[in-house]
This record gives sequence, structure tokens and C-alpha cells, in this order.
Amino acid sequence: MIETPYLLFLGDAPDQLAAKVAQGIKDWRPENAVGQYRMEGCKADLGLADMDLAEAKAAGAKTLVIGVANRGGLISPAWKKVLVAALEEGFDLASGLHNLLRDEPDLVAVAEATGRSLHDVRVPEVKYPIASGIKRSGKRVLAVGTDCSVGKMYTALALDAALREQGIKSTFRATGQTGILITGAGVPLDAVIADFMAGSIEWLTPDNDDDHWDIIEGQGSLFHVSYSGVTMALIHGGQPDALILCHEPTRTHMRGLPGYTPPTLEALRDIALPLAQVANPACKVVGISVNTQHMSEDEATAYLADLEASMGLPATDPYRFGAAKLAAALAAL
Amino acid sequence: MIETPYLLFLGDAPDQLAAKVAQGIKDWRPENAVGQYRMEGCKADLGLADMDLAEAKAAGAKTLVIGVANRGGLISPAWKKVLVAALEEGFDLASGLHNLLRDEPDLVAVAEATGRSLHDVRVPEVKYPIASGIKRSGKRVLAVGTDCSVGKMYTALALDAALREQGIKSTFRATGQTGILITGAGVPLDAVIADFMAGSIEWLTPDNDDDHWDIIEGQGSLFHVSYSGVTMALIHGGQPDALILCHEPTRTHMRGLPGYTPPTLEALRDIALPLAQVANPACKVVGISVNTQHMSEDEATAYLADLEASMGLPATDPYRFGAAKLAAALAAL
Repeated sequence: MIETPYLLFLGDAPDQLAAKVAQGIKDWRPENAVGQYRMEGCKADLGLADMDLAEAKAAGAKTLVIGVANRGGLISPAWKKVLVAALEEGFDLASGLHNLLRDEPDLVAVAEATGRSLHDVRVPEVKYPIASGIKRSGKRVLAVGTDCSVGKMYTALALDAALREQGIKSTFRATGQTGILITGAGVPLDAVIADFMAGSIEWLTPDNDDDHWDIIEGQGSLFHVSYSGVTMALIHGGQPDALILCHEPTRTHMRGLPGYTPPTLEALRDIALPLAQVANPACKVVGISVNTQHMSEDEATAYLADLEASMGLPATDPYRFGAAKLAAALAAL
Repeated sequence: MIETPYLLFLGDAPDQLAAKVAQGIKDWRPENAVGQYRMEGCKADLGLADMDLAEAKAAGAKTLVIGVANRGGLISPAWKKVLVAALEEGFDLASGLHNLLRDEPDLVAVAEATGRSLHDVRVPEVKYPIASGIKRSGKRVLAVGTDCSVGKMYTALALDAALREQGIKSTFRATGQTGILITGAGVPLDAVIADFMAGSIEWLTPDNDDDHWDIIEGQGSLFHVSYSGVTMALIHGGQPDALILCHEPTRTHMRGLPGYTPPTLEALRDIALPLAQVANPACKVVGISVNTQHMSEDEATAYLADLEASMGLPATDPYRFGAAKLAAALAAL
């Protein structure tokens, strides 16, 4: 668990996109985002108050989160001075970068001397069990995609927000580094040892109130040959009561796999549902989330209407049109 | 790679079953088994020449393989004297035990002093790539099961032997510790980090001659919620041209999962084949391997005949009736 709230470190981000992680935190957990820390030359701006370390400390921030990615996932020397000062000032540090905070001897030394924590959210910090398959109380929904990076995290976060708006108990369960930084907890599934993948998801989504929904962040795709094993573990460890199918209709090949054609939503449904029913025979496909960013609004509207007619399921782009339809489908289960 | 041939260490095995790993090596790679080393009270006997370290050395053995499991997977203090002496005598050590050779400071010290290697086959020693999905030359067959521990390794080893008997080029590709000890190489898939599972299988089964078969050892089951992610990675990383369905018909629930009913062979076929065709559209189910150990010979014969009629596929118990049928089905592809 990462202590909240955060000061969001944008460093010397070359553009707004480089601060995607910080943007996600600000969009989805604004209560976690006390302010932003920008260095000279920073081209990103979240519209939060600019704060130095002392100001952020006074405003209650507990952790400095590296909310920016730079080339190669490195911890830049230019950042080091700020990171060391933050530890000295009493902040924990959290990072999802490929290069780890714990591999930087100076940060480790200062963290030890000051009694602060270094959170590398790419690295599991829990000894997960092997999955037992035992039925858990409470309800769970999982986003599964025709491909990687089609909007599964966004869909899950939007669904979580929509359920809470309707007064329904809901928890977003992060399974990737951005999701973990947004909520302060989760399982970095792609870094878990094979035998414990499904068990880590059981651990992440334990028994809960009968009317509580765990919204499980999806990873990979059953149709993506590099990462399908991770998706499979989510389907069986998550024991979902409901699946949301996620899709990006303009993609011509699977992400990173030229020569692999993305499947249809029907093909995804026909493979994912029987597999999910192994762990939860009552599981149903309840809706479709489409990433329509490369379509005009008219095209998107027509495409979604066609899908609803052909597949008999509510379909929306949660970014463009909201997730209320999907939340209603869950509430009706 | 573990250096062969081996001296098989049976220690103080309480019964024959405890020496299962050594038995597997002797059965499947007799040319790797120079002799057996038994301590006082050993109740297992492979029918190999009993040798002390000097005799085994003189006979050409390069590695002492711990071919016995004891309670808790421990490296017993009673064994230590022999293991240390073996290192001093110039043997490498290899083990598939849960507790690692490399975690025993005395063994590490002696191995370093003598320049010998400690092989813990449960632990990956390679930095595997992320799977690329690029089509490889050569042919591959994968055994998939309705459950764990239904005879997938035995099926693969028997198939490998049957193909070679027919003069067909074939390599057994181990994915678990027993298989790795038998052949001296492989991927301990259940210990690989999630993101690299499929890539490790691509690494294990690289480009090969067009008329060469890789016989890939299966793991887990798509229907076993604890380990299905591992199976999925084998299906996509292995890019199989052919699947063999493996089954144990008398099992009343999935191994370790009371409350989970094993699927039918038809259900396994209907899930596994479309998933395999994502990575290799030409993939076919070519045969069925049944573990009939809990059936009489008449029952087994009748069951296999029924299966052949109902599923239209060759069906055999390779232990009882040989694997020639399966090898013929592959050769006919």
C-alpha cells in the first residue's frame, strides 16, 4: 500500500503525453493529487497547483509519485536531486518505471537513513498463494479485450466511477503499474511468477459484501500470443460474474504482432465466456466497451448502435459517451 | 544444460515411488544413467549397477542427479556428506527439489572451490524474451490435458520415442523439472515471470528442419483454474501444428480442486483448438492419450474404441498400448 495523498512529480516531461500516469491519477483519484512538481523545462501541466516539497508537505502529501515516463524508463540524473530531497523532507517515493528505485544506491541509502519507503510498483511485494478456486462472496466484473491496449483500464475505472455515482459499492482492483499508482494498491500481474498468477488475483479480490463489485482491471488478451497466459489467469483467478468485452475497431493488426488480425467481438465472447464459466458457471457477458477515438462521432454512434443490434448487448465508448449503460447492466445482474 | 551422463542418487528413499525422477531418467534416457547411488536403508532400486563416486567417475558420469523426493522437498542432512564428496570428486549436482542447492552455503562453498556447477532445475537460468509470435520452421506437437497430472509428460516422451523408432526426427522439449532432469535441458515454466512465459516456449522450440518434430511437454490444463495461464502460454508460445488431448476418465474432480468437475474431451477440444489456431491457423487435434491405470484391460480397450468412434481420432494409452498410433497420426499430417 502506497500512502496517499500524493505530490505528482512531472520532472522535465517533454510533452503532456509523457505525464500520462500523473494525468490518470488526477483524472481518477483527484483526492490523491495534492499538487504537481515541475522542473525547469517541463512541458506537461495537469492544471494542479505547482508546489515545492515544503508546500506539498504542508498540504498533507505523503508520497512523491513519479508520474512521468522518459525514454527507456530511466531514473534521470536530473531527477535525482529532487528525489533525494523528497526523501529527506519525509516523503515516500513511488514509481512504475522499468528501472527500479531500489536499484539506485543513493536513493536506497537516503531512504534507509530517513526511514522512508521506495515503492517500485512493477515488482510484486507479496508472496501470493496458488489459486484455490474456492468460490468467494461479493461480485466481480472483468474487462477482456480483443487486443492489448484497447482501453480495459479506462473502462474499469469509468465503470467503478459510474457504479459509485449510482450508490453501488465498488472497488477498482488494479493489475498494472498505472492502475496501482492511481489507487495506491494492486497486483503487478505481468511480473508475477507463473504458478501464482491466478492466486494473486484471488488475493486481490477477496470475499466481500454480497452487493459489492470488484472491478478488475484486465491485461493482455486471449488472442494476443505474447500475453494470453496473463489474461487466462485473470479470468480464472478473478472468478468474474460478469465480463465486459473491449474493442478498438480500427486496428488492422494485433499490437506488436504484424500478421495477427484482431478477432471479432463475437470470437472473443465465444472463447472468453466458456473459460470464465469454468471458474464461475453463472458468468455472463454484460456489455461492450469500444474505443472510438479514431472514428467521428457519427461513425461511433452508428457503430455502437449496430453492435447493440447484432450482439444484443449494451455498447458504449465510456470516454466519449460515459459508462452509465455498463453500470446499469451490472446493476441489473 | 546439465552435463550427461548421470549417476542417479537415490539417497535413503523410503520406497520405489520416492525415486520417481530417477526412474524417469532410467526409463526414457537409459544412456544418461550410468549407475545408481544408494545409501544405507534405501528402499528403491532401479536395477542399475550400484556405484560409489569413484566407480561412477571411472564409468564416465559427469553429474550426480538427486533422483529422489523426500518429505517437504528438503535437502536432507544425511545426504549432505555424499553431495559434498561428489563435488570434491568432480561431479556437478542437479536437483529438482523445492529447496535449492544454491541456498545451502556449504554446497555453494565447495562448488566454488572445486569449480563445479549446482543445477536447480526449478529455477530459470535464462533471460527469456517476450513472445514475438513469428512463425517458426519445423513442426511442433503439444499435449493438452483435461486436468493436471493426467500423463502429459509420459505421452510426450512416449511419442518422442515412437517417432524416433519410425526414423522421424524428434526432440522432447521439457517444461517441468522432471522432464528437464531426464533430458538435461528445458524451461521450468511454472517458475517463469508472467510476461515471459510464451517467449520462453518460443525460445525452447526454435526454428528447425521442416521435417523435425518438437514434442512439447504440457503443463496444467485450460480447465484447471490454478494453472490455466501456464497452459495458455504453452499453446501460444508453442505454436503447435498438432494437439494431443490427454485424459484420465475415472477422476471425479480436478486435481486439488474439489467441486470442479473435469471437462469432457470434447469440451477440451472445442476450447483448445480455436486458441491454438490463433498462433497457428493450421493446427489440428490429431489424437487422444488416455491414462487407463484405474481401468481393467477390457474396460480400457472398450473405452478407447468408443472414443475413437465418437471423436473420430486415434486413441491409446501409451503406457499400456504404446504410442505408435499417435506417432502415425503425426507422421500423416
